[in-house]
Amino acid sequence: MSVDELRVWAPEGLREITPGDDLVALLVDLLVDDARAHPDRALADGDLLVLTSKVVSKAEGRVVAADDREQAITAETVRVVATREHATGVTRIVENRLGLVMAAAGVDASNTPEGTVLLLPLDPDASARALRAGIAAAFGVRVGVLMTDTAGRPWRDGVTDIAIGAAGVRVLDDLRGESDSFGRPLTMTVTAVADEVAAAAELVKGKAAGRPLAVVRGLAQHVTDEDGPGARVLVRVGEQDMFRQGSAEAYAQGWKDALGERPSSS
Amino acid sequence: MSVDELRVWAPEGLREITPGDDLVALLVDLLVDDARAHPDRALADGDLLVLTSKVVSKAEGRVVAADDREQAITAETVRVVATREHATGVTRIVENRLGLVMAAAGVDASNTPEGTVLLLPLDPDASARALRAGIAAAFGVRVGVLMTDTAGRPWRDGVTDIAIGAAGVRVLDDLRGESDSFGRPLTMTVTAVADEVAAAAELVKGKAAGRPLAVVRGLAQHVTDEDGPGARVLVRVGEQDMFRQGSAEAYAQGWKDALGERPSSS
Repeated sequence: MSVDELRVWAPEGLREITPGDDLVALLVDLLVDDARAHPDRALADGDLLVLTSKVVSKAEGRVVAADDREQAITAETVRVVATREHATGVTRIVENRLGLVMAAAGVDASNTPEGTVLLLPLDPDASARALRAGIAAAFGVRVGVLMTDTAGRPWRDGVTDIAIGAAGVRVLDDLRGESDSFGRPLTMTVTAVADEVAAAAELVKGKAAGRPLAVVRGLAQHVTDEDGPGARVLVRVGEQDMFRQGSAEAYAQGWKDALGERPSSS
Repeated sequence: MSVDELRVWAPEGLREITPGDDLVALLVDLLVDDARAHPDRALADGDLLVLTSKVVSKAEGRVVAADDREQAITAETVRVVATREHATGVTRIVENRLGLVMAAAGVDASNTPEGTVLLLPLDPDASARALRAGIAAAFGVRVGVLMTDTAGRPWRDGVTDIAIGAAGVRVLDDLRGESDSFGRPLTMTVTAVADEVAAAAELVKGKAAGRPLAVVRGLAQHVTDEDGPGARVLVRVGEQDMFRQGSAEAYAQGWKDALGERPSSS
């Protein structure tokens, strides 16, 4: 389906979030205020709301003392994927309890009060569903909601935002069965729409600007009636994951297993 | 820096590109026609043009017979990263001559005439510079240009668009030195702006719609006077790449080397 035009904006004015805040109510207020200043931005059916997950973590009180950072990373870790030593310590790239492979399990020290670090939200998909329901109740419109975080990736420098929570969004757009411009079936293409939307939103929200929410207009074809399976379906797991271990870790394991399997007496 | 609003659109009407076409002239015509129909879209200083690299490949005649596909992949390959057997053959994930790690080296069978496959452009950064110069000559405005392709990534399902060529764009936005909302320095963050823009543009261009060019407005702060180093700087190489080999390949290499280092007689 064709998109005529995509528009992305990030309302200003959300105050610093603290544990116990009613985040959905604050976001509704933010959107009401923004629409008052910009009438053409009044929330409409088919809009997407893209929220930096960090504010959800803050509302949930997912803050720990920076001294407990390494312990917190361990607690969030399901499986270590790779480690790297550097001047100030060891970076652990791990699969966390959300299935996300991230440096330090997604535990983050930026945009948090001095001496603290933030963990990822408990259940970003649930948070997305709650925000979606709150928007429907307040505005009577059907929107999609994404929760985002910033992540590195293999082979490419620089970080991008990805979707770690979703409600009411077709996170994967399966084009298999549609045709290309020569009428041949597109056999291979499943687009990670939610990650592309997260990236587009980051360009507007930024990292330092204090605008954790973006509204994306023009993608109503990806907004669904049902909440759907959430961002969890973006996670590739098990045998499908050809980069389940860092190269150095896999190499070392192979070496070790070879010596174990074939003792020197054989 | 704050972005007030991001807008992305994809002009319709570019005809199918064939070898030898003057692609820059055709794109200039497309933008002139689009601005006639939509006066508010007239190209402006600070706009970004995001072009699917496939049309560059077509203009360059980078087409080979589908029967020669495997051979073409081999020719484009610098290094095999991982392989996977499946029902219809073996998928090779390789580093290609542009430094990109991609399935089948980026050789693609969609949106090409029956019986053919397309290779990536010879030099996407050079193509981006040529388009940028052509736009400056035709419109007298300073724009940024990105060339994109679609790629898979480890750990996440679905494909996204990435930047494989760039001119006049700050492809990596280094925020180290700026401050977060608590006044603490952002020490870790280098954002892959060019990949986020590529992703945003894909949401509008789509895969089947026949609109390979998108205009992105609102990111003038990332448009530079100089052409800059291109998209090549997004490629992470050598020791920095912790996922230089697939896990299975690295494991097998470790096993083999262990037995080589410690022969059974030792």
